[in-house]
Amino acid sequence: MIKARVTVTLKNGVLDPQGKAIEHALDGLGFEGVGQVRQGKVFDIEIEGADKAKAEADLKAMCDKLLANTVIENYSVSIT
Amino acid sequence: MIKARVTVTLKNGVLDPQGKAIEHALDGLGFEGVGQVRQGKVFDIEIEGADKAKAEADLKAMCDKLLANTVIENYSVSIT
Repeated sequence: MIKARVTVTLKNGVLDPQGKAIEHALDGLGFEGVGQVRQGKVFDIEIEGADKAKAEADLKAMCDKLLANTVIENYSVSIT
Repeated sequence: MIKARVTVTLKNGVLDPQGKAIEHALDGLGFEGVGQVRQGKVFDIEIEGADKAKAEADLKAMCDKLLANTVIENYSVSIT
């Protein structure tokens, strides 16, 4: 079994109101020196089999079709 | 400036209906051999200054206070 982690983050320049809200909340909690905060998603996915190349290709297809909105998001796949 | 990535994931045993929905959706799209899917969150945070030890301590405090619900979630901090 292959375990993979897919990380989906907003592209640069795309507004992230959720990140901004976290920034302000951290400031309100007294944390100093906090700059930009951007929130993204992470998916831990188990794939049956042992073919890492096929798994990676499948994971990229999953990102393109379902997990990420490639208009506004980047994704990265890492197999562990 | 220090750039950090905080990853928040559900603890083992905590139900993840969102992950289950993704699992079924991937299956419906024709991806075979997909096992468990678990969804988590990722925060990319910029911290002013160059003191990595202080930044790491601050980031852990941020997780405990705001970013993660430590009853049901684990977090990891990596400074890049």
